[in-house]
Amino acid sequence: MSRSIDVLGVGNAIVDVLARADDDDLHRAGLRKGAMQLVDEARAGQLYAEMGPTTVVSGGSAANTMAGLASFGRSAAFVGKVKDDAAGKEFFHDIRKAGVAFETAFATDGAATARCLILVTPDGQRTMNTYLGACQALEPADLDDDLVRAAKILYLEGYLWDPPGAKAAFLKAANISRANGAQVALSLSDSFCVDRYRGEFLQLIRDGLVDIVFCNESELHSLYETADFDTALRALCAENNLLGVVTRSAKGCVVADGDQATAVPAFPVEDVVDTTGAGDLFAAGFLAGLAQGLPHAQSASLGALAAAEVISHIGARPQKDLLQLARDQGLLG
Amino acid sequence: MSRSIDVLGVGNAIVDVLARADDDDLHRAGLRKGAMQLVDEARAGQLYAEMGPTTVVSGGSAANTMAGLASFGRSAAFVGKVKDDAAGKEFFHDIRKAGVAFETAFATDGAATARCLILVTPDGQRTMNTYLGACQALEPADLDDDLVRAAKILYLEGYLWDPPGAKAAFLKAANISRANGAQVALSLSDSFCVDRYRGEFLQLIRDGLVDIVFCNESELHSLYETADFDTALRALCAENNLLGVVTRSAKGCVVADGDQATAVPAFPVEDVVDTTGAGDLFAAGFLAGLAQGLPHAQSASLGALAAAEVISHIGARPQKDLLQLARDQGLLG
Repeated sequence: MSRSIDVLGVGNAIVDVLARADDDDLHRAGLRKGAMQLVDEARAGQLYAEMGPTTVVSGGSAANTMAGLASFGRSAAFVGKVKDDAAGKEFFHDIRKAGVAFETAFATDGAATARCLILVTPDGQRTMNTYLGACQALEPADLDDDLVRAAKILYLEGYLWDPPGAKAAFLKAANISRANGAQVALSLSDSFCVDRYRGEFLQLIRDGLVDIVFCNESELHSLYETADFDTALRALCAENNLLGVVTRSAKGCVVADGDQATAVPAFPVEDVVDTTGAGDLFAAGFLAGLAQGLPHAQSASLGALAAAEVISHIGARPQKDLLQLARDQGLLG
Repeated sequence: MSRSIDVLGVGNAIVDVLARADDDDLHRAGLRKGAMQLVDEARAGQLYAEMGPTTVVSGGSAANTMAGLASFGRSAAFVGKVKDDAAGKEFFHDIRKAGVAFETAFATDGAATARCLILVTPDGQRTMNTYLGACQALEPADLDDDLVRAAKILYLEGYLWDPPGAKAAFLKAANISRANGAQVALSLSDSFCVDRYRGEFLQLIRDGLVDIVFCNESELHSLYETADFDTALRALCAENNLLGVVTRSAKGCVVADGDQATAVPAFPVEDVVDTTGAGDLFAAGFLAGLAQGLPHAQSASLGALAAAEVISHIGARPQKDLLQLARDQGLLG
């Protein structure tokens, strides 16, 4: 019997290094609050030296989503590149122990495992600085065709557009999945990432290479270059054969399916500790629902639940059993 | 003007690696729930391979206490040994960024930086497995006499009795502090640690080398080899010129000062996530009060507050500003 998995995620394999900071710290360091920016090794070292005491947890956008899917009891695999250094071994340990199939070969030379230096402000907002390191060594050859063909859904992060080899791997995987009749989902990742690659992302959608788009409000605004939410949402709904899922923080989310836009509320969270991974875990919940054929509104509620769990603690991987949580909430039987 | 600091802590310098587990996992791995046991490198590797996804945060009992003191706005220094590897640099970064003076030279060869593999069960209880590594390279020469003389209070962890060089450093520091008229505090660390060194710990107390003892109930029971709390407490009260501080989890604590035993309640905690560092942070609060001449009951409340903060999240270092927290609670002006 050939292998079958619910979702294969391809993304940058990153270890997160998180510290508390206040708005003044961000200002002093010249950082854009809430954004992800790429930094080189020297800048990463300088930022680390300025950061407070840290908590180190495996991260990476698509990797977090796959960890979330596994926590919902779905089968998930991940492809991403780490080096065989301490951080890379930690990433390897953590994603496999999260229940995600991960078999990408370690890089044995070259740049260190990627790390994301994350400053978390008292409002829970996270500001990310990514040193891509070994992620830049990911190449199409790291993608096993059979693995891609085994996936019912392929999940790709927009951040993959940053390292050239990863972009090539992205396109290879998307084409295999399309030929195979699988669904291809794209996370737009970050509004500045959309700024960098707007034309290409729109082309992917309009070429029909992408069936599902996950984004938050600011990414949606950036994609359609408008500050008005309704205008942007209308543009998303007007894309042919696209399922769009737009997260709006405490305002919940909107599922745009052709001319039908369905709003689903967020889960109340008493104390927002760290929003790192909120979008990643929303996508995990939504895909967990989609993979078992649930209605979009119910899938979106699973996403909201997973996002609520992950923002209630430091770090972007779930700390609770999401399947159990969903059952406790009556969202899954 | 010569240097003056409130508290100097000497302890094992450790990076904590925490993962969730259930009672069955502990049983399968042959671990004693709630205890700290020493493991060699091979066993540490084996346990790590069995652990779930981890969160990595700097730890070490006395180091956690010093981080807590700094968070209360007191001046604190720490002496402990790490290697110049990734974990050692993380420890170095974190303790200094916590506001603690730390100048112990890195070990440049020999064993890796110590790590403590911690399994946290759903009840919040932590079970610790310590690979001492570079801690075994701590020696009396690492203690600067002037630094020890600068401290109003010297804080030593019982765990120091495990590595022979650290024990020698402990005794050197205690003798300098005693000659200097400073107070010497000892944390009993762990009931099995007390089992290993009961006679020596009692001798330290009865020789007058130790003025203050911090312990929890099970350590107290172990020290006096009785299962009855009142019997053990009476024995503690009967020690000459000793201030004893006994923590009792949700039951609060008892301050034993000669024939006077004062009970102070714990702070209510809604969700006990991870008890790692509870005793360390209790000691931090108590010493923060003591260092500024507050009454014992008030100092104990500061300890209870700090312990409540640290058990409400993963990891043994405070995530909130304890001085601010104490002011918000009306415990400090």
